[in-house]
Amino acid sequence: MRLAVLNGPNLNLLGQREPEIYGRTTLSEIEAMVRADAQVLGVELEWLQTNHEGELIDAVQGLPGRVHGVVINAGALTHTSLGLRDALLAVQVPFVEVHLSNLFAREAARRHSHIADLAVGFICGFGAEGYRMALRALAGRLQ
Amino acid sequence: MRLAVLNGPNLNLLGQREPEIYGRTTLSEIEAMVRADAQVLGVELEWLQTNHEGELIDAVQGLPGRVHGVVINAGALTHTSLGLRDALLAVQVPFVEVHLSNLFAREAARRHSHIADLAVGFICGFGAEGYRMALRALAGRLQ
Amino acid sequence: MRLAVLNGPNLNLLGQREPEIYGRTTLSEIEAMVRADAQVLGVELEWLQTNHEGELIDAVQGLPGRVHGVVINAGALTHTSLGLRDALLAVQVPFVEVHLSNLFAREAARRHSHIADLAVGFICGFGAEGYRMALRALAGRLQ
Amino acid sequence: MRLAVLNGPNLNLLGQREPEIYGRTTLSEIEAMVRADAQVLGVELEWLQTNHEGELIDAVQGLPGRVHGVVINAGALTHTSLGLRDALLAVQVPFVEVHLSNLFAREAARRHSHIADLAVGFICGFGAEGYRMALRALAGRLQ
Amino acid sequence: MRLAVLNGPNLNLLGQREPEIYGRTTLSEIEAMVRADAQVLGVELEWLQTNHEGELIDAVQGLPGRVHGVVINAGALTHTSLGLRDALLAVQVPFVEVHLSNLFAREAARRHSHIADLAVGFICGFGAEGYRMALRALAGRLQ
Amino acid sequence: MRLAVLNGPNLNLLGQREPEIYGRTTLSEIEAMVRADAQVLGVELEWLQTNHEGELIDAVQGLPGRVHGVVINAGALTHTSLGLRDALLAVQVPFVEVHLSNLFAREAARRHSHIADLAVGFICGFGAEGYRMALRALAGRLQ
Amino acid sequence: MRLAVLNGPNLNLLGQREPEIYGRTTLSEIEAMVRADAQVLGVELEWLQTNHEGELIDAVQGLPGRVHGVVINAGALTHTSLGLRDALLAVQVPFVEVHLSNLFAREAARRHSHIADLAVGFICGFGAEGYRMALRALAGRLQ
Amino acid sequence: MRLAVLNGPNLNLLGQREPEIYGRTTLSEIEAMVRADAQVLGVELEWLQTNHEGELIDAVQGLPGRVHGVVINAGALTHTSLGLRDALLAVQVPFVEVHLSNLFAREAARRHSHIADLAVGFICGFGAEGYRMALRALAGRLQ
Amino acid sequence: MRLAVLNGPNLNLLGQREPEIYGRTTLSEIEAMVRADAQVLGVELEWLQTNHEGELIDAVQGLPGRVHGVVINAGALTHTSLGLRDALLAVQVPFVEVHLSNLFAREAARRHSHIADLAVGFICGFGAEGYRMALRALAGRLQ
Amino acid sequence: MRLAVLNGPNLNLLGQREPEIYGRTTLSEIEAMVRADAQVLGVELEWLQTNHEGELIDAVQGLPGRVHGVVINAGALTHTSLGLRDALLAVQVPFVEVHLSNLFAREAARRHSHIADLAVGFICGFGAEGYRMALRALAGRLQ
Amino acid sequence: MRLAVLNGPNLNLLGQREPEIYGRTTLSEIEAMVRADAQVLGVELEWLQTNHEGELIDAVQGLPGRVHGVVINAGALTHTSLGLRDALLAVQVPFVEVHLSNLFAREAARRHSHIADLAVGFICGFGAEGYRMALRALAGRLQ
Amino acid sequence: MRLAVLNGPNLNLLGQREPEIYGRTTLSEIEAMVRADAQVLGVELEWLQTNHEGELIDAVQGLPGRVHGVVINAGALTHTSLGLRDALLAVQVPFVEVHLSNLFAREAARRHSHIADLAVGFICGFGAEGYRMALRALAGRLQ
Repeated sequence: MRLAVLNGPNLNLLGQREPEIYGRTTLSEIEAMVRADAQVLGVELEWLQTNHEGELIDAVQGLPGRVHGVVINAGALTHTSLGLRDALLAVQVPFVEVHLSNLFAREAARRHSHIADLAVGFICGFGAEGYRMALRALAGRLQ
Repeated sequence: MRLAVLNGPNLNLLGQREPEIYGRTTLSEIEAMVRADAQVLGVELEWLQTNHEGELIDAVQGLPGRVHGVVINAGALTHTSLGLRDALLAVQVPFVEVHLSNLFAREAARRHSHIADLAVGFICGFGAEGYRMALRALAGRLQ
Repeated sequence: MRLAVLNGPNLNLLGQREPEIYGRTTLSEIEAMVRADAQVLGVELEWLQTNHEGELIDAVQGLPGRVHGVVINAGALTHTSLGLRDALLAVQVPFVEVHLSNLFAREAARRHSHIADLAVGFICGFGAEGYRMALRALAGRLQ
Repeated sequence: MRLAVLNGPNLNLLGQREPEIYGRTTLSEIEAMVRADAQVLGVELEWLQTNHEGELIDAVQGLPGRVHGVVINAGALTHTSLGLRDALLAVQVPFVEVHLSNLFAREAARRHSHIADLAVGFICGFGAEGYRMALRALAGRLQ
Repeated sequence: MRLAVLNGPNLNLLGQREPEIYGRTTLSEIEAMVRADAQVLGVELEWLQTNHEGELIDAVQGLPGRVHGVVINAGALTHTSLGLRDALLAVQVPFVEVHLSNLFAREAARRHSHIADLAVGFICGFGAEGYRMALRALAGRLQ
Repeated sequence: MRLAVLNGPNLNLLGQREPEIYGRTTLSEIEAMVRADAQVLGVELEWLQTNHEGELIDAVQGLPGRVHGVVINAGALTHTSLGLRDALLAVQVPFVEVHLSNLFAREAARRHSHIADLAVGFICGFGAEGYRMALRALAGRLQ
Repeated sequence: MRLAVLNGPNLNLLGQREPEIYGRTTLSEIEAMVRADAQVLGVELEWLQTNHEGELIDAVQGLPGRVHGVVINAGALTHTSLGLRDALLAVQVPFVEVHLSNLFAREAARRHSHIADLAVGFICGFGAEGYRMALRALAGRLQ
Repeated sequence: MRLAVLNGPNLNLLGQREPEIYGRTTLSEIEAMVRADAQVLGVELEWLQTNHEGELIDAVQGLPGRVHGVVINAGALTHTSLGLRDALLAVQVPFVEVHLSNLFAREAARRHSHIADLAVGFICGFGAEGYRMALRALAGRLQ
Repeated sequence: MRLAVLNGPNLNLLGQREPEIYGRTTLSEIEAMVRADAQVLGVELEWLQTNHEGELIDAVQGLPGRVHGVVINAGALTHTSLGLRDALLAVQVPFVEVHLSNLFAREAARRHSHIADLAVGFICGFGAEGYRMALRALAGRLQ
Repeated sequence: MRLAVLNGPNLNLLGQREPEIYGRTTLSEIEAMVRADAQVLGVELEWLQTNHEGELIDAVQGLPGRVHGVVINAGALTHTSLGLRDALLAVQVPFVEVHLSNLFAREAARRHSHIADLAVGFICGFGAEGYRMALRALAGRLQ
Repeated sequence: MRLAVLNGPNLNLLGQREPEIYGRTTLSEIEAMVRADAQVLGVELEWLQTNHEGELIDAVQGLPGRVHGVVINAGALTHTSLGLRDALLAVQVPFVEVHLSNLFAREAARRHSHIADLAVGFICGFGAEGYRMALRALAGRLQ
Repeated sequence: MRLAVLNGPNLNLLGQREPEIYGRTTLSEIEAMVRADAQVLGVELEWLQTNHEGELIDAVQGLPGRVHGVVINAGALTHTSLGLRDALLAVQVPFVEVHLSNLFAREAARRHSHIADLAVGFICGFGAEGYRMALRALAGRLQ
C-alpha cells in the first residue's frame, strides 16, 4: 500500500509557530514519527509541504495511480481553497483530514472546511498524534 | 487508569438505525471492541447509553473522582444541549468527542457542536473505529 | 391495525392552558373522541403523554413491531428536539404531525419543526378535531 | 351551506406534473371526489382553477355573500402573492389552506406561506385526500 | 396637463376592506374627490384600478405621450412586482407613490417598495387625503 | 390651533448642503413659506432647529398643553435616536414626519426611521414643498 | 424541429427602454433576426411576448407536444415568479435562459433566477445577439 | 404566603463549578440564606433542583393552587427549553427570573432567554444575593 | 459611602409617560423613596436626570474620587450610546444597571444594552422598586 | 484579431473529472475545436491552463498590447480570487466568462462570481460548446 | 494654512482611560506635540474636544471659511453619529480620520465608521503619533 | 535597522491600473521615494512585489532574523488569504498595513482585512504617500 501526506501553508513553521496552539514538535519530527509508523504498517509514504495553493492542487492531481489514499492537513487553504476541493473531487482518492489544533476552539473563520464533507473522516485537536491516528485509520480502512 | 464512554440518544439503535449512515455494527458490538482495547491498554472502563438529557448530565456530574477521562458521543444532544456543555465545563474532566458519521457531510443543524471547543480532540466519520481511536488517544494523552 | 398517539410536554394541561389558543377540551376528552373513532375504524390504539424528551424518544424507539403508524403532537419538542427527529428517522414508522393551534399564526420560534419533513402529512389549526383528521388519514393511508 | 375550492397556477397539470411529488390523480378526478363528498355533506360547491394571480384575487373578492367558506390551494402564489393575502384579509371568509405535497420536505422557498396565518387550519402532504379532509373540516367547523 | 391615477389589487374593496386600517371611504368616493380637485387645477384625469399585475404594467406602458405624470398606489404589487418597476423605469414618466395606511406601522413585508426610489415623492398614512396631496404636489411640480 | 415645526441636525445648512440632494432653498426661506401658509390657515406656529439630540427631546417634552400637533424633520436623528422616539411616545402629540429628499433613493442606513410608525403620516421627496404639504395635512386632520 | 421563444414583461419596450442597458434594437428586429437564423437552421419558430405572468404560464403549459425546446427571457418574472418555475418543471421541455443585459452587473434583486437551475444553459450580457446564440445552441443540442 | 424556588441543570454543582464565574457559595448555602429570609418575611418555601427538563416542567405544572409565586433559575434550560416556556405560560403563576452570573458578559448563546419576557422581573449578576433580592421583590409584589 | 443615581432621557416624564409600561410613580417620588433608603443605609446620594447624552457622559466622567458606585438607568441611551459605554469603561466605577420595564417583553431594539456587560448586575421589570433593589445591592456589594 | 483563452485550476482534468457534471470531452479536445473555429474566423489564438492563481494573474497582466479579447473559465478561482478581479479591472481587455456546467444548479458557493460583472457576457451550462459560443460572440463583438 | 483638530467623547480622559488600549499620553500632551509640529509646518491650529454630539456637529458646521482641513478623532461618535456624517458631507472640508487604537483589533461595533468613506485618508493604531501623521499628511495634501 | 516592504498582486501595474482610484505613480516610483526616505532614516530596505500568494507567504516566513519590521500592502490577498494571516501570526515580526485607496469608500468585499487586527497600525487613502508614512511610523516605533 502507498499513501501520501500533504501539508499546506505554514506547516513548515511548526515548532516555532504559535507553540501554545500548535505545540513544539517540528514538521520533520512529525514526518519521522509517521514514517516509522508507516514502516511498521508496511505502507510506502510520500510527504509534501507547500505554501502554494497551485502546488497543492498539482500534487492532488498527481495522486491517482500512484497512491491509494491521502492524509491531508491543508492549513489555511482548508478554509479558502475551492480549487483544492475541486481537485479532491476530481481524483476521487480517499483521504483523511487532520488538523493539529482544535478548530472548534478557534476563530469562526476556521470552523468551515471546503473539503471535510468529502473526507473519509476528520480528526482535530490531538497535535502531532493526529497524523498518526489518521495514517492508521486510513491504512486500516483501505485494507 | 479509569475512563468512561458516554453515549447519548438513539445510539442504542445502532445497527438498525439508518445503516447507510451509521453502519451495521450494534452499540454492544462497539462496547465489546472498546472493552477489549481497554483491557489491552490496562484501562478500566465505564459505559453508559441514555436517551435522557438529564441522565447524561447526571452522569457527567458523577465523573470527577471516579474517572480520569471520557469519550463522549452525545448524539443529537451535541447540537441542542447547553446543559451538557455546562456539566462538562463544571467537572473539568478531559474528554474526546466522537461521532460515527462525518458530520460535515450532513445537514447544517449537525455542524454545530455545543461541546467540541471544550474537548481535547474531535473525531468523526470513522464509524465504530472512531471509538477505538478516541480511547487510545485519550489514554495516550493521560499517561 | 394498531396505531399510537404520542403527546409531548404540557399537552396534559389542555383545557386550562391558554384556552384562547388551545381551546377548552382536555386531553382526556380528546383521547376519548379519538378512541371512539379508532373503534369505528377497527384500529387498536396506544396513547401516551409525557413532559420528558427522553421518554418520548424511548416511546418512539418502542414503536416498530408493535404499531403500524403514529399520530404525534410533540408540543414544544417539535421545535427543539433533534433527538426526537433521530428516533423517528431510526424507526421508520409512518407518522402524521398534528398541532392544535395554527403554528403559522404564532411566534417565529414555533414555525420550524424538526420532524415535519419526515411526516406523511402535517395538520394544524383545527384544535382537537385535528387529532381525528390525523387518525383517519393515517388509517386510510395504511390500508 | 355553500363552499368554494380555489386552485392556483399549474394545478391543472396534476397527474402529469412531477407525479413523484404530486401523485397521478388529475385535478378533475380530485374535483369529482370532492363534489361527491360535498353532496353527501349537503354542501353546494364552486370550483375554480386559474394560472393568473389577478383572476384568483378577483375570485376571492367575489366570495362574500355567495359562499360560507373556502378551501384554497394557491400553488406557487402561496409563496409570492401578497395581493392574495390582502384579498383574503379583505373578504374575511373563513378558509382552509391545503397543499398536495409536504411543503416541509421541499425547497426553502416553499416553506413560507403568505396566507397560512389567516387560515382556519393548514393541511399538507396527504395528496388528493387533503382536499377531502379540508372540505370535511371546513364544513364541520361552519356548522 | 393630463395626469393618471393608477390603483393596484384590492383597492376596489376600499370602504369594506379592514376599515380600521384603510378607512371607510370607497375608491369611487376618492375618485370623485380627486376628480373635483383636478378640475379646479385644470388637470385632465385618467383613473384605473386593476387586480392584475399584467394590466397595471400594460397601463404604465401606455402612459408616455398621453399623460405628463402619474399618482400610483400599487397596493400589494408595491412589494412584489419587479415588472412594475421595470415598466416605470422604461417609460420615465414622473410619478408620486401614495399609500392609504402608514406602511411603517405595518408588517415588515410592507416596508420595502420596489418603486419608491424611482418616485418624485412618497406619501403614506393620510388615507384618502393622500391621493389629493399627491395630485396637487405632482401638478405643482410639473408646472 | 397651534402647531410646531421641529428640525434636527444640519437642516440649518439647507441651501448650501448638498444642493443636488436637498435643493437650494434655505431653512429660513422654508420657514417663511410655512409661516405664510399657517397665517392663511389661521394656525399659530412654533419653529425650532437644533443640532443637539437632547434639545430636540427637551422640545418634544415641552409640546403638550402648548401645541396641538407637530411637523418633524429630525434629520439624521430619525435613524439613530431612540430617545426621540421615547419622547414622542411619551407626549402623545400627533405629528407628521417629513423629509426633503426621497429616503428610498438613498443609503440603506437612511431607510429605517425610529419614529415613522408613530406618525400620522409620512412625506418625503418633495423638497421644501413637503413641509407645506405636512402642515396643511396636519391642520386638516386636527380640525 | 420546432422551437419557441418566450418573452416576459416589458420586453415589448425594447429600443426605447433604458437603451444604455438594453440597447437600441427593438423586439421586432430581434424577432426578425432570430426568424432568419431559424430558417437557415430549418427550425420552425413560435414567438410570444406578454406582460402577464398568467399568460406566460399558460404558454409554457401549452408547449409539450408542439415544440421541442424553448428560448426564454422571462424579464422581471425571472426573479419573482415561482409559478413560472413550476410550469417549466411540469412540462419538462428543454429550455435556454437568455437575458439582454449582464445580470451580474445590476441590482442584487436581479441576481437570483427562479428558473436558471432548470435550464440547459444560461446566457446573459450579449444583447440581441444572445437570442441568436441561444437558438443555435438549443437547436444544436436537440439534434 | 407560599413561594417556590426552582433551579435547573448544574446548579447543584455551585461552589465547585467555575467559581470565577459562579462564586464559591454552594446551592445548600444559598438555600439556607433564602430560607432564613423567608422565615423573616413569613413566607413558606419550596425548593427544587433538577438536571432534567421534564422534571422542571412537571414541577412548574404542579405550582398552581400550592404556591403564589416562583423564583426560577433555569440554568442552561433558560436558553434551550421552549417546553419550560409553555409550562410557565400555562400555569400563569407570577415568577422572577434570576441568574448568578451577568449573562450580558457571557457567550452570545446565553443572551437569549425563552422565559424572561413572561417574568415579573429579571435579575442577574449579583451571585447568591440575587436569589434574596428576587425573593424579597416577589414577596413584596404579591402582598 | 457616597453613591450616585443617573437617569437618562425621558425619565423626567415618569408618571405621565406610557403609564401602562412605566407605572404612575413620578421620578421625584422614586428619588424620595431612594433617598429615604439611602439615609437608612448611611449612604450619601447624588441624583441626576438629563435628556442630553453629552451631559450623561460628563456626569460619568465626574464620578471618580467623588462616589463609590452608581445606579444607572440610561433610558434609550442604553441602546444607542457607545460614548456612554466608553465613559463607564474609562472611570471604572462599579455600577448597577436598572430599568423600570421588563426589556425582554418589549421591542427588539431594547433588548441590546451597550453597558450591561460592564455592570455589577442588571435589574429590570420591577418598576420603581428596581431602583431600591439596585441601591441596596450596590451598597451591600461595596461594604 | 488575436484572442486568448484562459483556463483555471483543474480544467486540465476534464474528461476524467466528475464526467456527469463536466462531460467526457478533454481540454485538449476543446482546444482543438476552438482552434478550428478560430481559424475559420481568422482569429489567432493563445491558450493557457494553470492551477496557480498567481500564474493566471500574470497571464491576465500580459494581455494588453498582445490580444484584443479573452475567453476565460477561471474554474474555482471564479469564486475565490479577488486578485483575478483586480487584474481584469487593471488591464481593461474585454472578456467573456464561460463555465462548462450550469452554475445555478450547483452548490451555493459556486453561484457568486468575482469577475462576472466585469464581463462582456456570461455563458454557462453548454459544456464544451460554451467555449465555441464565447469565441464567436467575442470575435463578433470586437469586429 | 489653518487646520482644526476635533476630538469626540471621552478623549479628554486620555492617559487615565484604559491605558493598555489608549496609552498613557494625555490629550493635552498630544495637543502640545501637534501644536509644535504645526508651528514647524507653518500651520495655524484650532483644537476642540467635546463629549456632546451636538457641539461636534456645530463645530464642523463652523469650519468652512475658517480652516482648510480637519483632523478628526470622533471617538464613539464615529460609530453612532449619522448627524456627524451629514455635517461633514455638508461642509465639504477635507478631513483625515484618526484613531489611537487599532479598531480592527477591537469589538465588532467599532469596526464600522460612519465617516471613513468621506475622509481623505484613515489612520489607526499608532497612538498619539497618529495625530502627528494625520496633520503632516493633511498639510502635505493641501499644499 | 532593516525593514521590508511587501507588495501583493497587481501592485506592479500601478500607474496604469485604474488611475482614478490608485493614482498615476508607478510602483518603481514609490519604491524610489521610499528608498530615499529609508536612506535618510538610516534604514536598510528590502522590497518585494509578487502576484503569487505562496511567494508572499514564503517571503513573510523568511523575515525573522533578517528584518525588524515590515510594511505590507497585500492587495487583494488582504481580503482572501488566511494563509498570509497565519504566516504573519507565525513570524511575529511587527508590521504596518498600508493601502493606496480608501478601502472604506470601495466595495464591501474590500472592507474586511484578514491581517489588520495583527498590525501595529493601519493606513489607507493617502496613495503613494501612505508608504512613506508607514515606513516612518514603523521606524519610529522600532527605535
